[in-house]
Amino acid sequence: MAVHSSDIALAMRLADAAGAAIRPWFRRADIGLEIKDDRSPVTRADREAEAAMRRLLDAERSGDGVVGEEYGTKEGVTGRQWVLDPIDGTRSFTVGRPIFGTLIALVEDGWPILGIIDQPIAGERWLGVAGRPTTFNGQPARTRACPQLDGAIIATTSPHLFAEGDVPHYMALVAAISGGNPRQGPVYGGDCYNYGLLASGHLDIVAESGLQLYDFAALVPIVEGAGGRMCDWNGDPLTAASPGHVLAIGDPARTDDVLEALHGVHEH
Amino acid sequence: MAVHSSDIALAMRLADAAGAAIRPWFRRADIGLEIKDDRSPVTRADREAEAAMRRLLDAERSGDGVVGEEYGTKEGVTGRQWVLDPIDGTRSFTVGRPIFGTLIALVEDGWPILGIIDQPIAGERWLGVAGRPTTFNGQPARTRACPQLDGAIIATTSPHLFAEGDVPHYMALVAAISGGNPRQGPVYGGDCYNYGLLASGHLDIVAESGLQLYDFAALVPIVEGAGGRMCDWNGDPLTAASPGHVLAIGDPARTDDVLEALHGVHEH
Repeated sequence: MAVHSSDIALAMRLADAAGAAIRPWFRRADIGLEIKDDRSPVTRADREAEAAMRRLLDAERSGDGVVGEEYGTKEGVTGRQWVLDPIDGTRSFTVGRPIFGTLIALVEDGWPILGIIDQPIAGERWLGVAGRPTTFNGQPARTRACPQLDGAIIATTSPHLFAEGDVPHYMALVAAISGGNPRQGPVYGGDCYNYGLLASGHLDIVAESGLQLYDFAALVPIVEGAGGRMCDWNGDPLTAASPGHVLAIGDPARTDDVLEALHGVHEH
Repeated sequence: MAVHSSDIALAMRLADAAGAAIRPWFRRADIGLEIKDDRSPVTRADREAEAAMRRLLDAERSGDGVVGEEYGTKEGVTGRQWVLDPIDGTRSFTVGRPIFGTLIALVEDGWPILGIIDQPIAGERWLGVAGRPTTFNGQPARTRACPQLDGAIIATTSPHLFAEGDVPHYMALVAAISGGNPRQGPVYGGDCYNYGLLASGHLDIVAESGLQLYDFAALVPIVEGAGGRMCDWNGDPLTAASPGHVLAIGDPARTDDVLEALHGVHEH
Protein backbone atom coordinates (compact mmCIF):
# COMPACT_ATOMS: atom_id res chain seq x y z
CA MET A 1 0.00 0.00 0.00
CA ALA A 2 1.99 2.88 -1.31
CA VAL A 3 1.15 6.05 -3.16
CA HIS A 4 3.76 7.08 -5.68
CA SER A 5 4.40 10.62 -6.82
CA SER A 6 3.22 9.55 -10.28
CA ASP A 7 -0.14 8.56 -8.73
CA ILE A 8 -0.52 12.01 -7.23
CA ALA A 9 0.49 13.69 -10.48
CA LEU A 10 -2.04 11.61 -12.39
CA ALA A 11 -4.81 12.31 -9.87
CA MET A 12 -4.13 16.03 -10.21
CA ARG A 13 -4.38 15.74 -14.00
CA LEU A 14 -7.67 13.86 -13.66
CA ALA A 15 -9.03 16.72 -11.54
CA ASP A 16 -7.76 19.26 -14.08
CA ALA A 17 -9.46 17.35 -16.89
CA ALA A 18 -12.75 17.12 -15.02
CA GLY A 19 -12.67 20.81 -14.18
CA ALA A 20 -11.99 21.75 -17.79
CA ALA A 21 -15.00 19.66 -18.84
CA ILE A 22 -17.29 21.12 -16.16
CA ARG A 23 -16.51 24.84 -16.22
CA PRO A 24 -18.06 25.60 -19.63
CA TRP A 25 -21.40 24.14 -18.44
CA PHE A 26 -21.65 26.08 -15.16
CA ARG A 27 -24.85 28.19 -15.13
CA ARG A 28 -25.69 27.23 -18.71
CA ALA A 29 -29.37 26.66 -19.50
CA ASP A 30 -28.67 23.70 -21.82
CA ILE A 31 -26.93 21.42 -19.30
CA GLY A 32 -29.37 18.62 -20.15
CA LEU A 33 -30.60 17.75 -16.67
CA GLU A 34 -32.06 14.23 -16.51
CA ILE A 35 -33.25 12.04 -13.66
CA LYS A 36 -31.59 8.61 -13.66
CA ASP A 37 -33.20 5.27 -12.73
CA ASP A 38 -31.86 5.63 -9.16
CA ARG A 39 -33.74 8.99 -9.11
CA SER A 40 -30.52 11.02 -8.86
CA PRO A 41 -29.82 13.80 -11.38
CA VAL A 42 -27.21 13.86 -14.13
CA THR A 43 -26.15 16.47 -16.69
CA ARG A 44 -23.90 16.68 -19.72
CA ALA A 45 -21.22 18.10 -17.46
CA ASP A 46 -21.22 14.97 -15.23
CA ARG A 47 -20.91 12.71 -18.27
CA GLU A 48 -18.27 14.73 -20.09
CA ALA A 49 -16.15 15.11 -16.96
CA GLU A 50 -16.20 11.37 -16.19
CA ALA A 51 -15.48 10.52 -19.84
CA ALA A 52 -12.48 12.88 -19.82
CA MET A 53 -11.08 11.20 -16.70
CA ARG A 54 -11.65 7.71 -18.12
CA ARG A 55 -9.84 8.62 -21.34
CA LEU A 56 -6.78 9.63 -19.31
CA LEU A 57 -6.93 6.45 -17.22
CA ASP A 58 -7.36 4.22 -20.29
CA ALA A 59 -4.30 5.85 -21.84
CA GLU A 60 -2.05 5.80 -18.79
CA ARG A 61 -3.27 3.07 -16.41
CA SER A 62 -5.04 0.61 -18.63
CA GLY A 63 -4.60 -2.19 -16.08
CA ASP A 64 -6.25 -0.36 -13.19
CA GLY A 65 -9.93 -0.78 -12.43
CA VAL A 66 -12.31 2.16 -12.70
CA VAL A 67 -15.57 2.75 -10.81
CA GLY A 68 -17.52 5.81 -11.87
CA GLU A 69 -20.91 7.20 -10.99
CA GLU A 70 -21.98 7.66 -14.61
CA TYR A 71 -20.24 4.92 -16.61
CA GLY A 72 -20.06 2.01 -14.17
CA THR A 73 -17.27 -0.40 -13.34
CA LYS A 74 -14.30 -1.53 -15.42
CA GLU A 75 -12.47 -4.44 -13.84
CA GLY A 76 -8.70 -4.14 -13.58
CA VAL A 77 -5.78 -6.51 -13.08
CA THR A 78 -3.53 -4.53 -10.72
CA GLY A 79 -5.54 -4.57 -7.48
CA ARG A 80 -5.92 -0.81 -7.85
CA GLN A 81 -9.11 1.02 -8.64
CA TRP A 82 -9.86 4.64 -9.51
CA VAL A 83 -13.17 5.69 -8.00
CA LEU A 84 -14.72 8.73 -9.70
CA ASP A 85 -17.66 11.00 -9.04
CA PRO A 86 -17.41 13.70 -11.70
CA ILE A 87 -19.88 16.01 -9.93
CA ASP A 88 -20.77 15.30 -6.31
CA GLY A 89 -23.57 17.77 -5.69
CA THR A 90 -25.17 17.76 -9.13
CA ARG A 91 -28.22 19.60 -7.71
CA SER A 92 -25.94 22.31 -6.35
CA PHE A 93 -24.18 22.48 -9.72
CA THR A 94 -27.45 22.80 -11.63
CA VAL A 95 -28.60 25.78 -9.56
CA GLY A 96 -25.28 27.55 -10.05
CA ARG A 97 -23.69 27.20 -6.62
CA PRO A 98 -19.88 26.95 -6.63
CA ILE A 99 -19.83 24.38 -3.82
CA PHE A 100 -20.12 21.05 -5.69
CA GLY A 101 -17.01 18.94 -6.26
CA THR A 102 -15.26 16.36 -8.38
CA LEU A 103 -14.25 13.33 -6.30
CA ILE A 104 -11.30 11.15 -7.26
CA ALA A 105 -10.05 8.25 -5.15
CA LEU A 106 -7.35 5.67 -5.64
CA VAL A 107 -8.32 2.44 -3.86
CA GLU A 108 -5.81 -0.35 -3.26
CA ASP A 109 -6.93 -3.71 -1.90
CA GLY A 110 -10.24 -2.11 -1.00
CA TRP A 111 -8.76 0.79 0.94
CA PRO A 112 -8.73 4.42 -0.30
CA ILE A 113 -5.11 5.61 -0.24
CA LEU A 114 -5.52 8.87 -2.17
CA GLY A 115 -8.41 11.30 -2.45
CA ILE A 116 -9.17 14.61 -4.14
CA ILE A 117 -12.08 17.02 -3.73
CA ASP A 118 -11.86 19.57 -6.53
CA GLN A 119 -14.06 22.67 -6.83
CA PRO A 120 -13.39 23.88 -10.35
CA ILE A 121 -15.26 27.20 -10.23
CA ALA A 122 -13.63 28.55 -7.07
CA GLY A 123 -10.31 26.88 -7.93
CA GLU A 124 -10.15 24.91 -4.67
CA ARG A 125 -8.61 21.47 -4.24
CA TRP A 126 -8.17 19.22 -1.23
CA LEU A 127 -5.66 16.37 -1.57
CA GLY A 128 -5.38 13.52 0.92
CA VAL A 129 -2.76 10.76 0.75
CA ALA A 130 -2.61 7.91 3.27
CA GLY A 131 0.10 8.62 5.83
CA ARG A 132 0.64 12.22 4.77
CA PRO A 133 -0.81 15.56 5.83
CA THR A 134 -3.81 16.70 3.81
CA THR A 135 -3.39 19.82 1.72
CA PHE A 136 -5.77 22.54 0.50
CA ASN A 137 -4.43 24.24 -2.61
CA GLY A 138 -0.98 22.99 -1.64
CA GLN A 139 -1.04 24.24 1.96
CA PRO A 140 -1.47 21.96 4.98
CA ALA A 141 -5.10 21.55 6.13
CA ARG A 142 -6.02 20.56 9.71
CA THR A 143 -9.31 19.85 11.42
CA ARG A 144 -10.05 21.94 14.51
CA ALA A 145 -10.47 20.97 18.15
CA CYS A 146 -14.06 20.56 19.31
CA PRO A 147 -14.14 20.61 23.12
CA GLN A 148 -17.81 19.59 23.40
CA LEU A 149 -20.75 18.51 21.27
CA ASP A 150 -22.93 21.37 22.52
CA GLY A 151 -22.29 24.22 20.11
CA ALA A 152 -20.39 22.16 17.53
CA ILE A 153 -21.25 22.84 13.88
CA ILE A 154 -22.76 19.95 11.94
CA ALA A 155 -23.41 19.93 8.19
CA THR A 156 -25.40 17.59 5.99
CA THR A 157 -26.76 17.93 2.48
CA SER A 158 -30.47 17.36 3.11
CA PRO A 159 -32.53 15.88 5.94
CA HIS A 160 -34.75 14.24 3.30
CA LEU A 161 -31.94 11.97 2.11
CA PHE A 162 -31.92 9.83 5.27
CA ALA A 163 -33.78 6.54 5.28
CA GLU A 164 -36.83 6.73 7.56
CA GLY A 165 -35.21 4.64 10.29
CA ASP A 166 -32.17 6.90 10.37
CA VAL A 167 -34.09 10.11 11.03
CA PRO A 168 -34.60 9.71 14.82
CA HIS A 169 -30.88 8.97 15.27
CA TYR A 170 -29.91 11.95 13.17
CA MET A 171 -32.34 14.24 15.00
CA ALA A 172 -31.00 13.04 18.38
CA LEU A 173 -27.50 14.04 17.28
CA VAL A 174 -28.78 17.42 16.09
CA ALA A 175 -30.54 17.99 19.43
CA ALA A 176 -27.34 17.21 21.35
CA ILE A 177 -25.47 19.75 19.25
CA SER A 178 -27.99 22.58 18.92
CA GLY A 179 -29.74 22.43 22.28
CA GLY A 180 -33.03 22.86 20.41
CA ASN A 181 -32.08 26.22 18.83
CA PRO A 182 -32.96 25.87 15.13
CA ARG A 183 -30.50 28.65 14.32
CA GLN A 184 -27.73 26.45 15.74
CA GLY A 185 -29.04 23.45 13.83
CA PRO A 186 -27.34 21.82 10.86
CA VAL A 187 -25.89 23.78 8.01
CA TYR A 188 -27.63 22.25 4.99
CA GLY A 189 -26.50 21.72 1.41
CA GLY A 190 -22.87 21.30 0.54
CA ASP A 191 -22.32 17.65 -0.43
CA CYS A 192 -18.59 16.78 -0.54
CA TYR A 193 -17.65 20.41 0.06
CA ASN A 194 -18.69 19.97 3.71
CA TYR A 195 -15.98 17.34 4.20
CA GLY A 196 -13.37 19.65 2.70
CA LEU A 197 -14.43 22.47 5.02
CA LEU A 198 -14.26 20.03 7.95
CA ALA A 199 -10.73 19.02 6.90
CA SER A 200 -9.78 22.71 6.88
CA GLY A 201 -11.15 23.27 10.39
CA HIS A 202 -14.27 25.31 9.54
CA LEU A 203 -16.89 22.86 10.82
CA ASP A 204 -16.95 19.91 13.18
CA ILE A 205 -19.20 17.05 12.08
CA VAL A 206 -20.81 15.70 8.92
CA ALA A 207 -23.41 12.93 9.19
CA GLU A 208 -25.01 11.35 6.14
CA SER A 209 -26.54 8.10 4.97
CA GLY A 210 -27.23 6.53 1.62
CA LEU A 211 -23.77 7.34 0.28
CA GLN A 212 -22.17 5.17 -2.39
CA LEU A 213 -18.49 4.18 -2.56
CA TYR A 214 -17.88 6.94 -5.14
CA ASP A 215 -19.42 9.46 -2.73
CA PHE A 216 -17.09 8.75 0.19
CA ALA A 217 -13.90 6.95 -0.92
CA ALA A 218 -12.06 10.19 -1.72
CA LEU A 219 -13.11 11.77 1.56
CA VAL A 220 -11.40 9.22 3.80
CA PRO A 221 -7.73 10.12 3.15
CA ILE A 222 -8.61 13.83 3.11
CA VAL A 223 -10.38 13.88 6.48
CA GLU A 224 -8.00 11.43 8.18
CA GLY A 225 -4.87 13.12 6.82
CA ALA A 226 -6.19 16.37 8.31
CA GLY A 227 -6.46 14.81 11.76
CA GLY A 228 -10.14 13.86 11.65
CA ARG A 229 -11.99 10.58 11.79
CA MET A 230 -14.18 8.90 9.14
CA CYS A 231 -16.36 5.98 10.21
CA ASP A 232 -19.83 4.55 9.88
CA TRP A 233 -22.64 5.22 12.35
CA ASN A 234 -21.33 2.40 14.60
CA GLY A 235 -17.81 3.81 14.69
CA ASP A 236 -16.51 1.09 12.34
CA PRO A 237 -14.27 1.80 9.34
CA LEU A 238 -16.05 2.57 6.08
CA THR A 239 -15.92 -0.12 3.44
CA ALA A 240 -17.45 -0.53 0.01
CA ALA A 241 -19.94 -2.88 1.70
CA SER A 242 -21.03 -0.28 4.28
CA PRO A 243 -24.68 0.66 3.93
CA GLY A 244 -23.58 4.21 3.26
CA HIS A 245 -23.84 5.60 6.79
CA VAL A 246 -21.00 8.07 6.97
CA LEU A 247 -19.68 10.16 9.84
CA ALA A 248 -16.85 12.67 9.58
CA ILE A 249 -15.64 13.99 12.92
CA GLY A 250 -13.05 16.75 12.94
CA ASP A 251 -11.90 16.12 16.50
CA PRO A 252 -11.56 12.34 17.04
CA ALA A 253 -11.91 12.92 20.81
CA ARG A 254 -15.62 13.58 20.16
CA THR A 255 -16.25 10.23 18.47
CA ASP A 256 -17.83 8.52 21.48
CA ASP A 257 -20.02 11.57 22.17
CA VAL A 258 -21.28 11.55 18.59
CA LEU A 259 -21.99 7.81 18.64
CA GLU A 260 -23.76 8.08 22.01
CA ALA A 261 -25.91 10.94 20.77
CA LEU A 262 -26.78 9.04 17.59
CA HIS A 263 -27.80 5.87 19.37
CA GLY A 264 -28.94 7.06 22.76
CA VAL A 265 -26.82 6.70 25.90
CA HIS A 266 -28.59 3.56 27.08
CA GLU A 267 -28.53 1.70 23.79
CA HIS A 268 -24.83 2.06 23.13
CA MET B 1 -40.48 57.30 -5.90
CA ALA B 2 -37.37 57.68 -7.96
CA VAL B 3 -33.93 56.17 -7.83
CA HIS B 4 -31.17 58.56 -8.82
CA SER B 5 -27.84 57.55 -10.28
CA SER B 6 -26.22 58.92 -7.12
CA ASP B 7 -28.31 56.43 -5.07
CA ILE B 8 -27.02 53.55 -7.18
CA ALA B 9 -23.44 54.79 -6.94
CA LEU B 10 -23.72 55.07 -3.17
CA ALA B 11 -25.29 51.61 -2.85
CA MET B 12 -22.40 50.17 -4.85
CA ARG B 13 -19.92 51.89 -2.52
CA LEU B 14 -21.76 50.50 0.50
CA ALA B 15 -21.40 46.99 -0.95
CA ASP B 16 -17.71 47.62 -1.68
CA ALA B 17 -17.17 48.80 1.90
CA ALA B 18 -18.97 45.78 3.36
CA GLY B 19 -16.99 43.39 1.18
CA ALA B 20 -13.70 45.00 2.19
CA ALA B 21 -14.67 44.55 5.84
CA ILE B 22 -15.78 40.93 5.39
CA ARG B 23 -13.08 39.41 3.18
CA PRO B 24 -10.23 39.47 5.75
CA TRP B 25 -12.41 37.42 8.15
CA PHE B 26 -13.42 34.68 5.71
CA ARG B 27 -12.27 31.26 7.01
CA ARG B 28 -10.45 32.86 9.95
CA ALA B 29 -10.58 30.97 13.26
CA ASP B 30 -10.92 34.16 15.34
CA ILE B 31 -14.15 35.49 13.82
CA GLY B 32 -15.69 35.73 17.29
CA LEU B 33 -18.90 33.78 16.71
CA GLU B 34 -21.59 34.66 19.27
CA ILE B 35 -25.24 33.75 19.62
CA LYS B 36 -27.48 36.81 20.01
CA ASP B 37 -30.59 37.13 22.17
CA ASP B 38 -32.77 36.22 19.17
CA ARG B 39 -30.65 33.02 18.93
CA SER B 40 -29.14 34.01 15.60
CA PRO B 41 -25.35 34.09 15.15
CA VAL B 42 -23.12 37.13 14.71
CA THR B 43 -19.39 37.59 14.13
CA ARG B 44 -16.88 40.43 14.04
CA ALA B 45 -17.29 40.48 10.27
CA ASP B 46 -21.05 41.20 10.53
CA ARG B 47 -20.41 44.06 12.95
CA GLU B 48 -17.48 45.59 11.09
CA ALA B 49 -19.29 45.42 7.75
CA GLU B 50 -22.43 47.12 9.08
CA ALA B 51 -20.34 49.76 10.89
CA ALA B 52 -18.46 50.51 7.65
CA MET B 53 -21.74 51.00 5.77
CA ARG B 54 -23.19 53.20 8.52
CA ARG B 55 -20.10 55.41 8.51
CA LEU B 56 -20.59 56.05 4.80
CA LEU B 57 -24.30 56.76 5.25
CA ASP B 58 -23.68 59.11 8.18
CA ALA B 59 -21.18 61.04 6.08
CA GLU B 60 -23.20 61.22 2.88
CA ARG B 61 -26.89 60.82 3.74
CA SER B 62 -27.16 61.97 7.30
CA GLY B 63 -30.90 62.65 6.91
CA ASP B 64 -31.84 59.17 5.72
CA GLY B 65 -32.99 56.51 8.14
CA VAL B 66 -30.97 53.32 8.65
CA VAL B 67 -32.19 49.88 9.71
CA GLY B 68 -29.48 47.31 10.26
CA GLU B 69 -29.45 43.78 11.59
CA GLU B 70 -26.63 44.44 14.06
CA TYR B 71 -26.96 48.10 15.13
CA GLY B 72 -30.71 48.70 15.03
CA THR B 73 -32.72 51.61 13.69
CA LYS B 74 -31.76 55.24 13.20
CA GLU B 75 -34.75 57.43 12.37
CA GLY B 76 -34.39 59.75 9.39
CA VAL B 77 -36.16 62.88 8.13
CA THR B 78 -36.26 62.25 4.37
CA GLY B 79 -38.78 59.41 4.10
CA ARG B 80 -35.95 57.22 2.86
CA GLN B 81 -34.39 54.33 4.72
CA TRP B 82 -31.32 52.21 4.07
CA VAL B 83 -31.95 48.63 5.15
CA LEU B 84 -28.76 46.65 5.78
CA ASP B 85 -27.92 43.05 6.49
CA PRO B 86 -24.13 42.94 6.50
CA ILE B 87 -24.00 39.13 6.27
CA ASP B 88 -27.15 37.26 5.32
CA GLY B 89 -26.10 33.65 5.86
CA THR B 90 -23.80 34.11 8.83
CA ARG B 91 -23.81 30.32 9.42
CA SER B 92 -22.70 29.77 5.84
CA PHE B 93 -20.01 32.44 6.28
CA THR B 94 -18.71 30.87 9.50
CA VAL B 95 -18.23 27.46 7.85
CA GLY B 96 -16.36 29.00 4.93
CA ARG B 97 -18.92 28.74 2.15
CA PRO B 98 -18.75 31.51 -0.46
CA ILE B 99 -22.55 31.72 -0.81
CA PHE B 100 -23.55 34.21 1.90
CA GLY B 101 -24.32 37.80 0.94
CA THR B 102 -24.45 41.43 1.99
CA LEU B 103 -27.96 42.86 1.55
CA ILE B 104 -28.53 46.56 0.94
CA ALA B 105 -31.94 48.07 0.24
CA LEU B 106 -33.16 51.61 -0.23
CA VAL B 107 -36.74 51.92 0.97
CA GLU B 108 -38.89 54.95 0.14
CA ASP B 109 -42.30 55.43 1.74
CA GLY B 110 -42.12 51.82 2.91
CA TRP B 111 -41.36 50.34 -0.51
CA PRO B 112 -37.94 48.91 -1.52
CA ILE B 113 -36.85 50.73 -4.69
CA LEU B 114 -33.24 49.52 -4.85
CA GLY B 115 -31.62 46.27 -3.75
CA ILE B 116 -28.16 44.70 -3.83
CA ILE B 117 -27.04 41.15 -3.06
CA ASP B 118 -23.25 41.15 -2.88
CA GLN B 119 -21.08 38.03 -2.56
CA PRO B 120 -17.67 39.45 -1.74
CA ILE B 121 -15.61 36.23 -1.98
CA ALA B 122 -16.79 35.17 -5.43
CA GLY B 123 -17.05 38.79 -6.58
CA GLU B 124 -20.71 38.52 -7.52
CA ARG B 125 -23.28 41.31 -7.29
CA TRP B 126 -26.96 41.48 -8.18
CA LEU B 127 -28.47 44.98 -8.48
CA GLY B 128 -32.20 45.61 -8.71
CA VAL B 129 -33.77 49.03 -9.24
CA ALA B 130 -37.54 49.59 -9.39
CA GLY B 131 -38.64 49.91 -13.01
CA ARG B 132 -35.33 48.77 -14.48
CA PRO B 133 -33.90 45.40 -15.51
CA THR B 134 -31.92 43.61 -12.81
CA THR B 135 -28.23 43.11 -13.44
CA PHE B 136 -25.69 40.51 -12.33
CA ASN B 137 -22.16 41.92 -12.40
CA GLY B 138 -23.41 44.55 -14.81
CA GLN B 139 -25.11 42.16 -17.24
CA PRO B 140 -28.91 41.75 -17.50
CA ALA B 141 -30.32 38.94 -15.33
CA ARG B 142 -33.64 37.22 -16.11
CA THR B 143 -35.65 34.56 -14.35
CA ARG B 144 -36.48 31.48 -16.41
CA ALA B 145 -39.78 30.06 -17.60
CA CYS B 146 -41.20 27.26 -15.47
CA PRO B 147 -43.90 25.44 -17.45
CA GLN B 148 -45.12 23.34 -14.51
CA LEU B 149 -44.61 22.87 -10.80
CA ASP B 150 -43.70 19.19 -11.20
CA GLY B 151 -39.94 19.17 -11.69
CA ALA B 152 -39.37 22.81 -10.73
CA ILE B 153 -36.39 23.51 -8.49
CA ILE B 154 -37.12 24.94 -5.07
CA ALA B 155 -34.51 26.21 -2.62
CA THR B 156 -34.73 27.14 1.04
CA THR B 157 -32.12 27.61 3.72
CA SER B 158 -33.28 25.06 6.29
CA PRO B 159 -36.52 23.18 6.95
CA HIS B 160 -35.96 23.73 10.69
CA LEU B 161 -36.44 27.49 10.35
CA PHE B 162 -40.19 27.25 9.63
CA ALA B 163 -42.63 27.78 12.46
CA GLU B 164 -44.39 24.51 13.34
CA GLY B 165 -47.66 25.54 11.68
CA ASP B 166 -45.86 26.37 8.44
CA VAL B 167 -44.29 22.96 7.99
CA PRO B 168 -47.31 21.11 6.53
CA HIS B 169 -47.83 23.87 3.97
CA TYR B 170 -44.16 23.87 3.03
CA MET B 171 -44.09 20.07 2.74
CA ALA B 172 -47.23 20.13 0.54
CA LEU B 173 -45.45 22.50 -1.82
CA VAL B 174 -42.36 20.28 -1.81
CA ALA B 175 -44.50 17.21 -2.59
CA ALA B 176 -46.15 18.98 -5.55
CA ILE B 177 -42.70 19.82 -6.92
CA SER B 178 -40.74 16.65 -6.24
CA GLY B 179 -43.40 13.98 -6.69
CA GLY B 180 -42.06 12.33 -3.54
CA ASN B 181 -38.52 11.84 -4.91
CA PRO B 182 -36.19 13.11 -2.16
CA ARG B 183 -33.47 13.63 -4.77
CA GLN B 184 -35.75 16.14 -6.50
CA GLY B 185 -36.59 17.79 -3.19
CA PRO B 186 -35.47 21.22 -2.08
CA VAL B 187 -31.93 22.43 -2.49
CA TYR B 188 -30.99 23.47 1.05
CA GLY B 189 -28.69 26.16 2.38
CA GLY B 190 -28.06 29.32 0.45
CA ASP B 191 -29.85 32.19 2.23
CA CYS B 192 -30.05 35.31 0.02
CA TYR B 193 -27.87 33.66 -2.63
CA ASN B 194 -30.88 31.53 -3.62
CA TYR B 195 -32.82 34.65 -4.62
CA GLY B 196 -29.91 35.85 -6.73
CA LEU B 197 -29.71 32.49 -8.50
CA LEU B 198 -33.49 32.62 -9.06
CA ALA B 199 -33.13 36.12 -10.57
CA SER B 200 -30.47 34.73 -12.91
CA GLY B 201 -32.72 31.86 -14.05
CA HIS B 202 -30.96 28.95 -12.31
CA LEU B 203 -33.79 27.91 -9.98
CA ASP B 204 -37.55 28.44 -9.86
CA ILE B 205 -38.93 28.97 -6.36
CA VAL B 206 -37.74 30.04 -2.93
CA ALA B 207 -40.09 29.65 0.05
CA GLU B 208 -39.16 30.81 3.54
CA SER B 209 -40.71 32.10 6.73
CA GLY B 210 -39.46 34.01 9.72
CA LEU B 211 -37.64 36.58 7.60
CA GLN B 212 -37.11 40.12 8.86
CA LEU B 213 -37.33 43.31 6.76
CA TYR B 214 -33.54 43.36 6.43
CA ASP B 215 -33.64 39.78 5.10
CA PHE B 216 -36.04 40.47 2.21
CA ALA B 217 -36.21 44.20 1.35
CA ALA B 218 -33.20 44.03 -1.01
CA LEU B 219 -34.56 40.92 -2.73
CA VAL B 220 -37.79 42.51 -3.98
CA PRO B 221 -36.37 44.85 -6.67
CA ILE B 222 -33.84 42.20 -7.70
CA VAL B 223 -36.36 39.41 -8.25
CA GLU B 224 -39.07 41.64 -9.74
CA GLY B 225 -36.65 43.50 -12.02
CA ALA B 226 -35.56 40.10 -13.36
CA GLY B 227 -39.15 39.19 -14.27
CA GLY B 228 -40.05 37.21 -11.15
CA ARG B 229 -42.59 37.70 -8.40
CA MET B 230 -42.05 38.32 -4.68
CA CYS B 231 -45.05 37.95 -2.37
CA ASP B 232 -46.10 36.49 0.95
CA TRP B 233 -47.65 33.04 1.35
CA ASN B 234 -51.08 34.47 0.50
CA GLY B 235 -49.87 36.11 -2.70
CA ASP B 236 -49.96 39.58 -1.16
CA PRO B 237 -47.13 42.12 -1.49
CA LEU B 238 -44.43 41.95 1.16
CA THR B 239 -44.39 44.75 3.70
CA ALA B 240 -42.36 45.46 6.79
CA ALA B 241 -45.40 44.28 8.74
CA SER B 242 -45.56 40.88 6.98
CA PRO B 243 -44.97 38.01 9.36
CA GLY B 244 -41.93 37.09 7.31
CA HIS B 245 -43.51 34.52 4.98
CA VAL B 246 -41.68 35.04 1.72
CA LEU B 247 -42.16 33.49 -1.70
CA ALA B 248 -40.00 34.18 -4.72
CA ILE B 249 -41.34 32.75 -7.96
CA GLY B 250 -39.21 33.01 -11.09
CA ASP B 251 -42.11 32.53 -13.50
CA PRO B 252 -45.09 34.62 -12.30
CA ALA B 253 -47.40 32.32 -14.31
CA ARG B 254 -46.80 29.66 -11.62
CA THR B 255 -47.96 31.89 -8.75
CA ASP B 256 -51.44 30.36 -8.44
CA ASP B 257 -50.02 26.82 -8.62
CA VAL B 258 -47.57 27.61 -5.82
CA LEU B 259 -50.28 29.16 -3.63
CA GLU B 260 -52.65 26.26 -4.28
CA ALA B 261 -49.97 23.72 -3.40
CA LEU B 262 -49.08 25.63 -0.22
CA HIS B 263 -52.65 25.87 1.03
CA GLY B 264 -54.33 22.87 -0.53
CA VAL B 265 -56.67 23.13 -3.49
CA HIS B 266 -59.82 23.10 -1.39
CA GLU B 267 -58.73 25.69 1.15
CA HIS B 268 -57.71 28.37 -1.31
